[in-house]
Amino acid sequence: MGATPPLSPLAPSDFPDLPVIEGVSFATAEAGVRYTGRPDVMLAKLVSATTIAGAFTRSATRSAAVLDCQEKIGQNSDAGAAILVNSGNANAFTGRNGTDAVKALTEATAKTLNIPEDRVFTSSTGVIGEALPHQRITDKLAELSKALAPGDISAAARAIMTTDTFPKGSSTTVTIDGQQVRIAGIAKGSGMIAPDMATMLVYIFTDAAVDQPVLQSMVTALNRKTFNCITVDSDTSTSDTLLVAATGASGIRITESSVGFMEGLRQVMLDLAHQVVRDGEGATKFVEIAVTGAASDAEARIHGMAIANSPLVKTAIAGEDANWGRIVMAIGKSGARADRDQLSIRFGDILVANEGWVNPDYSEDEAAAYMKNQELEIHVDLGLGGGTAVVWTCDLTHGYIDINADYRS
Amino acid sequence: MGATPPLSPLAPSDFPDLPVIEGVSFATAEAGVRYTGRPDVMLAKLVSATTIAGAFTRSATRSAAVLDCQEKIGQNSDAGAAILVNSGNANAFTGRNGTDAVKALTEATAKTLNIPEDRVFTSSTGVIGEALPHQRITDKLAELSKALAPGDISAAARAIMTTDTFPKGSSTTVTIDGQQVRIAGIAKGSGMIAPDMATMLVYIFTDAAVDQPVLQSMVTALNRKTFNCITVDSDTSTSDTLLVAATGASGIRITESSVGFMEGLRQVMLDLAHQVVRDGEGATKFVEIAVTGAASDAEARIHGMAIANSPLVKTAIAGEDANWGRIVMAIGKSGARADRDQLSIRFGDILVANEGWVNPDYSEDEAAAYMKNQELEIHVDLGLGGGTAVVWTCDLTHGYIDINADYRS
Repeated sequence: MGATPPLSPLAPSDFPDLPVIEGVSFATAEAGVRYTGRPDVMLAKLVSATTIAGAFTRSATRSAAVLDCQEKIGQNSDAGAAILVNSGNANAFTGRNGTDAVKALTEATAKTLNIPEDRVFTSSTGVIGEALPHQRITDKLAELSKALAPGDISAAARAIMTTDTFPKGSSTTVTIDGQQVRIAGIAKGSGMIAPDMATMLVYIFTDAAVDQPVLQSMVTALNRKTFNCITVDSDTSTSDTLLVAATGASGIRITESSVGFMEGLRQVMLDLAHQVVRDGEGATKFVEIAVTGAASDAEARIHGMAIANSPLVKTAIAGEDANWGRIVMAIGKSGARADRDQLSIRFGDILVANEGWVNPDYSEDEAAAYMKNQELEIHVDLGLGGGTAVVWTCDLTHGYIDINADYRS
Repeated sequence: MGATPPLSPLAPSDFPDLPVIEGVSFATAEAGVRYTGRPDVMLAKLVSATTIAGAFTRSATRSAAVLDCQEKIGQNSDAGAAILVNSGNANAFTGRNGTDAVKALTEATAKTLNIPEDRVFTSSTGVIGEALPHQRITDKLAELSKALAPGDISAAARAIMTTDTFPKGSSTTVTIDGQQVRIAGIAKGSGMIAPDMATMLVYIFTDAAVDQPVLQSMVTALNRKTFNCITVDSDTSTSDTLLVAATGASGIRITESSVGFMEGLRQVMLDLAHQVVRDGEGATKFVEIAVTGAASDAEARIHGMAIANSPLVKTAIAGEDANWGRIVMAIGKSGARADRDQLSIRFGDILVANEGWVNPDYSEDEAAAYMKNQELEIHVDLGLGGGTAVVWTCDLTHGYIDINADYRS
């Protein structure tokens, strides 16, 4: 696997204290799927009537576990549920064998926890193209079941890590009609050290009571503005999975109009999404790209992602070079509408270019000083309409090449 | 500008001997647009009745020179024509000023050569966002006009270089009904050292007589299979320009059915396109990606470009890692149709994966040995239909980061 890369310079100082979410309990185990001497399986058990919503990779080559989750999501059930995740082996591109492995895991988990099989959701992350030794996991189910405890979410965050340089967690508490509901989530994702995939896995839990269709529509809408607006290197995993489970244990019912709950969920999702960018391979800069004045929100996002994914923009940022010409280039190639002579570009508060030409007051020294910051904001205004988007990315450095051009042996 | 990078390890051993194309003459001059001590302007003068076809960047932020060429292309004229190209300054993102500079250049060239202004085509390549000091070029027009000579195409190839590590030329001779027509072309393009743009400029000349609409339809079709099938880093210049001029001096008329001529033109275009990839920044491997079995040719190209542009695939190639999992990932994210369980992947003659899983006879040692070659072939079969495409790219190395993350100062 090569050496573990050093802790990202953009990592948060500590793993946060996450509140206990009533209705969910966690356990982890060392199943030895691939790694030894560390937990590599996490099980989350959810009380009966928990609703579960999700979002998944749109890859045409998605893994068997993703296909299985997609089939099961959207139902309403009074039965309990479970989420089982292993690290070390992604069970991706394993042909028919992959489907059988998912079946073996969900069947055994259902039996152990006495819940219906269609209420068991699994994810796998790690090497691809190798058969998942699923029996190593099912052999641990009795142990996992016994160990289930409400407070072990931080251990779960660690068990699902592959090449992450830090565990990722976030939470918030929302007050609704004087009563509190809690939201807590964990994530993994950073990029890949050969032969891992850059799988992003996210599990969020709340004690609110939310009907499944309401929860699903919130998750779908928020996913579009959070996880779907981050990019490390434009590459997409075959296994990306986001699951949000509402246990209802607080007794507080959330409806479509619960703006406060939706805002809390958005904060947790955005925080976890940002943490994934901060753990981007080789990242030394965290970059927010805000696009305004586009012909539509969709076109604003296309421009934002074209800038965020441009190797030339990302290397310029790594080199602390205020190279606005590369931003113009990325906008031009994006395919969305732009008018060269209406464009303006800011780095932070510095107006770099305006109406298609460099700002006459632009100071290269001032811009160069700004680019030395670890957190950067690039603002592009297209001058065409009311479309806006914000996307987040990191720079492209020698560290990325070191990690990804490593020999597999 | 930083130090000139060393000669690409993928460079051809020599600049080829290019034949004289009757009806076109060349001159170069040191105008000092930005560089000193080297020619930075080339002028090509074309005899009357020369037909000219072209293809241009589709960037929404394309430069004034490109817009001017696009406006002029497609006409038929009995007048002479000219192509004027400068290196050092791209005259891109220079607002209204850029349009004025193009007007000044075309007006002065037309006057000097006594041809209509709408028969003068210009290109500029180099730094962007800085006003083009066009008078330095027009001051040299009398000198250029006097120096025009039929044999100076190789000097022209050198005058248009910016960060290229070698000049690019190619030619062929086609026999039609026992008579010979000649095709010779030059190109520049490699990538960009800050603050240059990765402009690709290509000028091809033939002594065949070809009606403009016939020439244009050939160029459009061939461009799709040559220059539009190469990628260094997925980024697109605001100034990319391809012009093909047919002087008619051989007296041999080419029609739509002249398969031999079209094949000759294809060879020259493909050779120049490959030379641009071979001069990709930091490139150490030349990679051909052949896609078959896609739902359509268009979808095959989408898959091919997704593989060719994937930073994860490109770093794996740099690391000589036969990482077929990253190819599966790139296919999955491309947006074109794929069925995981129908996919097969070859590196050269080595069958790596078949019908969605690793080939049981696959030897990682054999694949690792293959990946040490400087020229690599990756073949993906989708197993869906008859769509095919071939695209070419290079690897992503520390050299790319060195060149592009350099400080601008």
